[in-house]
Amino acid sequence: MFEESLRRLVDSVEGGLACVVMGFDGISLEKYLANEPGAFDVETIGMEYSVVLRQIRTTASMLDAGDLGEVAIRNERLTAILRPISDEYFLLFAMKPDGNFGKGRYLARLVAPEIRRELA
Amino acid sequence: MFEESLRRLVDSVEGGLACVVMGFDGISLEKYLANEPGAFDVETIGMEYSVVLRQIRTTASMLDAGDLGEVAIRNERLTAILRPISDEYFLLFAMKPDGNFGKGRYLARLVAPEIRRELA
Repeated sequence: MFEESLRRLVDSVEGGLACVVMGFDGISLEKYLANEPGAFDVETIGMEYSVVLRQIRTTASMLDAGDLGEVAIRNERLTAILRPISDEYFLLFAMKPDGNFGKGRYLARLVAPEIRRELA
Repeated sequence: MFEESLRRLVDSVEGGLACVVMGFDGISLEKYLANEPGAFDVETIGMEYSVVLRQIRTTASMLDAGDLGEVAIRNERLTAILRPISDEYFLLFAMKPDGNFGKGRYLARLVAPEIRRELA
C-alpha cells in the first residue's frame, strides 16, 4: 500500500525508528521499522497513544479548538509525532530523542496526505 | 512569584496568548494573559489538558519511555505547549497556530526550570 511513504519517512530522518498507520481503535494497518529499531514495539506504542489521541480529540472538541493537526510527545527515551490521517486513522512516527525532530515533523506533514489519498 | 517568567514567555513569542502554571490535578497556581488574548479561558484549557497529561505520563511509564519532557498539541485554532515542572505542576503555554512555535518551545524549555526553582 503506502509502504513507500512510510519507508521514506523513517529512513530520511536521522534518528527515525519506526512508523505505523493505525486506527483510532488501536488496530494497526501498516508499519515500517528502521533496520535497527532496538527493543521497540511500535504497535504497542501506537495502541497506547491511540487512547491519548482519542482523548485529545475529545478535548479539542470541548475547547472548540478546531481539527487536530499534530501531537508531539517527547520523553526521555522516545519522541513520538502523531498526525490524524482521517477520522478513522492516524500516523505515528517514533524517533530517538536526539534525532532531527524538525525534519520528522516536516516529513510527517507531507506523508500524511499521501496516505490519506491511498486510503480513500 | 514567577510572574516575570510567565510574562516573558507570553510577550516574547509572536502569537503568544497565555500561560498558566497548574497542578496535575487541574488547579491553577499562577497565570499570565497577553493583552488581547481574545475569547480564551486558559484555566479551562489547562484543566482539560491536565487530564491528557496525566494519561501521557501513565503511558510513558507503561512504555518505559522515561520522564516526560514536552507535549505539543496543534489544533486548527490553538497550539498548546506543555512541560512538566515537577511531579506536581506543569506549565501550559497557549499560542496562535501561526505564531512562532519554535521560539515558544525554546522559551518554555528555559522558563520551566526557573519556575521549578521558585516552587522549591
